[in-house]
Amino acid sequence: MEIDYSNIKVIAFDADDTLWVNETYFRKAEEQFADLLEKYETKNKIDQELFRMEMKNLDLYGYGIKGFVLSMIESALQLSNNRVSQATISDILDIGRKMILHPVELLEGVKEVLRKLNGDYRLIVLTKGDLLDQERKLENSGLSKYFHHVEVLSDKKEENYINLLDHLEIDVKEFLMIGNSLKSDVLPIVNIGAKAVHVPFHTTWKHEEVLVEDEHGDYLTINKLTDILKYF
Amino acid sequence: MEIDYSNIKVIAFDADDTLWVNETYFRKAEEQFADLLEKYETKNKIDQELFRMEMKNLDLYGYGIKGFVLSMIESALQLSNNRVSQATISDILDIGRKMILHPVELLEGVKEVLRKLNGDYRLIVLTKGDLLDQERKLENSGLSKYFHHVEVLSDKKEENYINLLDHLEIDVKEFLMIGNSLKSDVLPIVNIGAKAVHVPFHTTWKHEEVLVEDEHGDYLTINKLTDILKYF
Repeated sequence: MEIDYSNIKVIAFDADDTLWVNETYFRKAEEQFADLLEKYETKNKIDQELFRMEMKNLDLYGYGIKGFVLSMIESALQLSNNRVSQATISDILDIGRKMILHPVELLEGVKEVLRKLNGDYRLIVLTKGDLLDQERKLENSGLSKYFHHVEVLSDKKEENYINLLDHLEIDVKEFLMIGNSLKSDVLPIVNIGAKAVHVPFHTTWKHEEVLVEDEHGDYLTINKLTDILKYF
Repeated sequence: MEIDYSNIKVIAFDADDTLWVNETYFRKAEEQFADLLEKYETKNKIDQELFRMEMKNLDLYGYGIKGFVLSMIESALQLSNNRVSQATISDILDIGRKMILHPVELLEGVKEVLRKLNGDYRLIVLTKGDLLDQERKLENSGLSKYFHHVEVLSDKKEENYINLLDHLEIDVKEFLMIGNSLKSDVLPIVNIGAKAVHVPFHTTWKHEEVLVEDEHGDYLTINKLTDILKYF
C-alpha cells in the first residue's frame, strides 16, 4: 500500500546522523577513553561501564556531549578506584572539547534534498541534545537558510512530540519526521498519528536500538536521503 | 509617561531568578569550590580564576550547570597545577549533581501573578541554560499548568529574540518579557521594539551585570513580581 503524503506541510529533520555525522565521533571518543584507561581494565569492561554510567546519569544530564564528558570523568574515577591521573582527567576534557568543535560532515544528498523541498514545505530541525551544539552545527553546516527554525527536545517520546505540535500549532496529519532512529524519530511519530520516514545510519548508539516486534503502523524506510525525493 | 500595555498578548517570563531562585546556588557552589581548593590558592584568586575559566568556555559550553561543572574541573586542575586529588574531582561532580537536583524554591508572588494572568495572556517560559534542567524545574515547581510552553535560547541577544518571535509568529508589539537581568531580559527586548519589565533579583552573576549609561528606551522596573498586577 502506498503511504499518502499529500497532506504534509511541515517536514522535520532529525539532525545527528540524519543531516550530519555524529555517532561516529562518540564511538571514536569511547575508543580514546578506553585507551586512556587501559591499565585499569579491559577495553570491553571499560565500554560496558561507561555505557552503564551514561544510563545512570541520563535523567540527570540528558543527551549531549557535556553530559557524556561528565560521565566519562565519573567512570574514569570509578574504574581506576580513584587512581586515574590528573593528566588523564585533562585528556578527557580535551576529548569533549574536540567533539564539540569537530567540523560538521554533511551526509550524502542532504543539500540536494533540502534545496528541493525548501519553499514547498516548512522545514525544521528537530533534535534532542544540546541546543548550543545543534545551533553551532547548523550554522557551520551552511544549511540554516533552508530551515524555518531549530527545535531541541529534552527527549523524543510521544509526549514531547505532542507538546511540540501543540505549541507550534501544527496538525498531526500535516507533519512528517525524517530521521535515523527508529526509537526516537519513527515509532513515537507513527504512534501519535503523524508520518515518519526512516533513513538508517550505519552506526546506532546502543541506547537508541530497538527491536521492532510488531507492526507499529506504516512508515517508509529509505536507503539514502535522496530517495525521499521520489515521494515529494 | 505611562507605558501602554494594551497591545500585549504574549507574556514571556525568564525562569532563573525571576520565577525561582537560581543564582544563589551558583554562589554557594563557588564557595564550596573555593573551600575544596583552599590549600592551593586564596579564595579571591580561586573565584577570579573560576570566573575567567567560565568566560573562556562560554562559547564552548554555553549556559547551565553542566558547563559550570566542566569549568570547575578544568579550573581545579589548573589552580592546583594538576595536583588536585581524585576525591576532590568527585566532590566537584557532586556539587553539580546537587545543584541539578536542588528542590525548586519559587520566588514571592509567582503563583499569584501566573494565576491572575493565565487565561488573558499566552504565557511562556523563556530562558537560556539547559533545556532538561529548565523542564525539570518547571515540572517540579508545579507551574507547568500556567504556561503554554518553554522556550530555551542558546543566548538572549536581540538576534535570538527576533528569530524566536519570527518562528512563533508573534508580533513584536504584542510581546512582553519579564525578567531579572537587564542585559538579557530587558535591553535587547526594548531594542527590538517589544516591551520589557525588570524585576531585579538580589544577586546578579557578574557576567549578567550591565552598566546602563544612557536611555535604552522605556521599560518598567518593579520591586516585586506582584507589582505587575497593577498594570495587567
